[in-house]
Amino acid sequence: MNKTINKQTERAIVLLSGGMDSLVTAAIANRDCRELFFMHANYGQLTEKRELLSFNELCKHFKPKQSRILNWDWFAQIGGSALTDPSIELPSSAEQEGIPITYVPFRNANLLAAAVSWAEVLHAEAIYIGAVEEDSSGYPDCREVFFRDFEKLIQTGTCNEFPIHIETPVLHLSKAEIVKLGMELGAPFALAWSCYQDNNVACGVCASCRLRLKAFAQAGYKDPIPYRIRQATDE
Amino acid sequence: MNKTINKQTERAIVLLSGGMDSLVTAAIANRDCRELFFMHANYGQLTEKRELLSFNELCKHFKPKQSRILNWDWFAQIGGSALTDPSIELPSSAEQEGIPITYVPFRNANLLAAAVSWAEVLHAEAIYIGAVEEDSSGYPDCREVFFRDFEKLIQTGTCNEFPIHIETPVLHLSKAEIVKLGMELGAPFALAWSCYQDNNVACGVCASCRLRLKAFAQAGYKDPIPYRIRQATDE
Repeated sequence: MNKTINKQTERAIVLLSGGMDSLVTAAIANRDCRELFFMHANYGQLTEKRELLSFNELCKHFKPKQSRILNWDWFAQIGGSALTDPSIELPSSAEQEGIPITYVPFRNANLLAAAVSWAEVLHAEAIYIGAVEEDSSGYPDCREVFFRDFEKLIQTGTCNEFPIHIETPVLHLSKAEIVKLGMELGAPFALAWSCYQDNNVACGVCASCRLRLKAFAQAGYKDPIPYRIRQATDE
Repeated sequence: MNKTINKQTERAIVLLSGGMDSLVTAAIANRDCRELFFMHANYGQLTEKRELLSFNELCKHFKPKQSRILNWDWFAQIGGSALTDPSIELPSSAEQEGIPITYVPFRNANLLAAAVSWAEVLHAEAIYIGAVEEDSSGYPDCREVFFRDFEKLIQTGTCNEFPIHIETPVLHLSKAEIVKLGMELGAPFALAWSCYQDNNVACGVCASCRLRLKAFAQAGYKDPIPYRIRQATDE
């Protein structure tokens, strides 16, 4: 692990959902870049308000130079995902066949496109996104090939006066490795929200909670946030 | 000119600014597709309200199966374009060196990303966009290479259960050819808005008005909308 402070990037935009993958990505960007610019999207996800709270807390913690919130009502209007359409039931198991119903159609392309627009104005050199390929259940827009194709699109679709790179520092890590790396960087996991189901206390049952709990267990750490199920059974 | 009715596409999304290029693109989609879905963006452009009025009028005319309006306040917040930042002066001449200040950073990528999200939900096969390469003053996201790279991104970034094509039927036409084609298809040019400068009567002076007036003159038609300058001098 390279522990030397090596601020190679002048300006970077970090896409932050408020979950633990984007938290650790922000901690990495904070280590490697001089100026941070945070971007978050409200797209009608069920835990929109709770994620926004996490984002605001993470802004207080990391103190980016600027932050922007994208209010994308239209995403909820088009539906098509269990994350944005309350009539589609959330899965309780992390293991499923095919692309899960929690996939939000082409969401990461929308996020990256917005970040690139901002990067062109700021002259930012990098966009950090906390996508995870292996643990992300096969979402097509979480794969290495997608991010490489997007970088190519940036080259053809922008003024290209300076290069804009997409940085995916946790893309090939397991969730347990992400927890370990975040702990080493002092990432405030207590502020990160993962639960798909609840806005107040993490349910401990949904696919996202299960992945997080398993990751902490495998990494040998205790997750600092309370869970409803752990509260009911362990405490 | 193929005048037979040949509805090859079942469902198509049409990105409509309300200008004449997107109007003629919609007329072509209307000829070639069974079901139309219209999408429009308010992104803080100076003539936002007027363009929205045109969009609504075009919805009344073409009667798409559904329409969606994207409210993108964040685009105006990030600035960087004379179209979204009132402190940047609009050019009055169409001929300039380099990429003009009216370029809105990576706007078409944002529009296409939103349309692809909707297309995945609708199972639409095509997205129509009225970009024009030759007359668009070198905007990087109006070039053939950009649209081909975007199609590749759709293949890697979506569930890809069905192909989604980007249709750019006016990309390589001159503005005069677009006027001619639109007239042949009965496109309602009186409803299309082009002026960058004014919300009530087209100024006749801004780069966009000049391009439109020149196109009608070259095509041998009279533009049906009134102009402030033509009103003062010709009438």
